Amino acid sequence: MREKQARARELKVKPTVLKLGGSVITHKEKPLTPNLPAIKRLASEISRANVSRLVLVHGGGSFGHPIAKQYAIEKGYKDQSQIIGFSKTRQAMIALNKLVVDSLIQHNISAVTVQPSSCIITKQGRIQLMEERPLRKLLEMEFVPVLHGDAVLDSDKGFAILSGDQLVSSLAIKLNAERIIIGIDVDGLYASDPKTDLNAQLIQHATPQELRKLQHKIEENKVTDVTGGMLGKIMELIPAVEKGIQAMIINAANPDNVYKALKRERVSGTVIKRGETVA
Amino acid sequence: MREKQARARELKVKPTVLKLGGSVITHKEKPLTPNLPAIKRLASEISRANVSRLVLVHGGGSFGHPIAKQYAIEKGYKDQSQIIGFSKTRQAMIALNKLVVDSLIQHNISAVTVQPSSCIITKQGRIQLMEERPLRKLLEMEFVPVLHGDAVLDSDKGFAILSGDQLVSSLAIKLNAERIIIGIDVDGLYASDPKTDLNAQLIQHATPQELRKLQHKIEENKVTDVTGGMLGKIMELIPAVEKGIQAMIINAANPDNVYKALKRERVSGTVIKRGETVA
Repeated sequence: MREKQARARELKVKPTVLKLGGSVITHKEKPLTPNLPAIKRLASEISRANVSRLVLVHGGGSFGHPIAKQYAIEKGYKDQSQIIGFSKTRQAMIALNKLVVDSLIQHNISAVTVQPSSCIITKQGRIQLMEERPLRKLLEMEFVPVLHGDAVLDSDKGFAILSGDQLVSSLAIKLNAERIIIGIDVDGLYASDPKTDLNAQLIQHATPQELRKLQHKIEENKVTDVTGGMLGKIMELIPAVEKGIQAMIINAANPDNVYKALKRERVSGTVIKRGETVA
Repeated sequence: MREKQARARELKVKPTVLKLGGSVITHKEKPLTPNLPAIKRLASEISRANVSRLVLVHGGGSFGHPIAKQYAIEKGYKDQSQIIGFSKTRQAMIALNKLVVDSLIQHNISAVTVQPSSCIITKQGRIQLMEERPLRKLLEMEFVPVLHGDAVLDSDKGFAILSGDQLVSSLAIKLNAERIIIGIDVDGLYASDPKTDLNAQLIQHATPQELRKLQHKIEENKVTDVTGGMLGKIMELIPAVEKGIQAMIINAANPDNVYKALKRERVSGTVIKRGETVA
C-alpha cells in the first residue's frame, strides 16, 4: 500500500528532457565514429545524478548526417535511388543509439529506446502524428526512454529528417516537462561563433522575444548565422519555453556539467525563459 | 504520369508476411550467438526473390529468450529488479535486429526496422494498441519493414513478451496480407516431435478445425505438446487463416526454401488454409 502511494506521488514528478548533442557523443568530422569516452562519461553522470522522470534525446552527429546528406533525405522523396539511403540513414542512427543505450544500461540505467520513425510521421518536416502511449508508460514505470534525431516518414514529402531539437521541444510540451537541458560542445548561445571568434560573448539569459529579434537581425543582414548555427537549433525550443518550460544550454563536453545541471547545481550556460508579463 | 499509374497499381498488391524463426537466425543453445551465415543466405534469397510488398518478422532465438527468462519478463512486472531486465531484453533484440537489417541492406534490400515496443502496447500479452501508420507508409513506398518478437509494455501486467507469431498474425490481418510464410528449422508441422521421433509424420495440409482438434487432443491427454512446441506457435496464425490468408510453414534452414516460397515455387512444408464451406 505504501509502495502504491509512493508510486502515485511519483507520477506527479514532472519530467526532465535532456538532449545530448551529436557533436558531443560522436567525432563530428569522422563519419560513423562515436566518441565512446564521452558516451561513457555522460552515462556515468546521468547514473550518479539519478533523477526521476528523465527523457533522453540524442543527436545524429557523424552517424546520421553524412549518409542523410549523401542521399538528400532532407529534401524528401525525389527518386527511387534514395530509398536505400533512407534505410542506411536509419540503420546508422540505430547503431549510434545502440552504443548510447548499451552504455546507459552498463551504468545501471533502465534505458529503453523509443524509435521516432516507428511512432512519428511528419508533414513537411514537422511532427504531424506521434503515438506517445508507449513512451508515457515507460516514464510511469521509471524507465529512461531514449529517443534520437531520425529519418522519418513524411505525409507530404515521403520522408524527412526529424531533428533531435524539434523532438525535444515537442516531447517537453506533450509530457508537460519541467525543464529542458541541452548539452552541446560549446558553453551555450553566443552572440557570434565561439569556434571562429575568440571574443565571442556568451548570452547568459534570453527570452523568446530576444531570440526572435536576434534571428530577425541575422535574416535582415542576409549573413550566415553568426551564432555558428546554434540559434536555428535553439529557435526550435521556443514553443516549449513559451509554455513555461525552462531550457538550459550547457557544455556537455565539460565533465560534470550534465551531472550538475541534472542535480540543479550551478552550471554556466544559456538559460532561456519566458519573459514575465508586467502586471 | 505513367510512373504515377504504376505506383497506384502497385498499391493494390497484397503484402506477403515472412517470418524468420529465431532458431534459424541464431544458435538457439548459445546465448547471444547469431547464425550469421544463415542470416546472410536468407538476405540473399529475399533479395533474389525480389517480391513486392514484403513485411519481415523475426524471432528472438538465443538473443531475446535467455535474458527475458532470467528476469521473468513474460510474467509481467512483479518487482523493481525486473526493470533493468526489460531494458536488457529489448537491447538484445535490437542487437539481433541490427544484424538482420544490416545484412538485408548489404543485399540491396531497403529494409527499415519498425520497433514493436515503440508502437505497440499489449493487454495481458495480447496486442491492444498498435500505431500502424508508419508501417503502412513504409510498405506503400516499397520499403521492407522489419519487425520482431519483442519485450513490450502491457497495460495490465506492466510488460509482456510479444511473440513474433502473434505479431505475424496481427500484421497479416491489419495489412490484408495475401499470405504468410513461416520459416522454421524443421520441415513443417509434425504429428509428433521430429527432433526426437524419427518416424514423425509431416502434416502437409491442415485447416483451423483440424488444428483445434489436435490441440484439444493434446490438452485432454495432459501430455506435453507432441508436436515439439510447434502447434502452440501455429495456433497464433489461426485468426489470420480464418480471414482467408494462407499460411505456409517451411524449413528456412534449407537453402532456397524461402526463395522458392516467395517465388511461389513448390516447397515441402505444411499449408494451413481455411476449410471450404460446402455449398
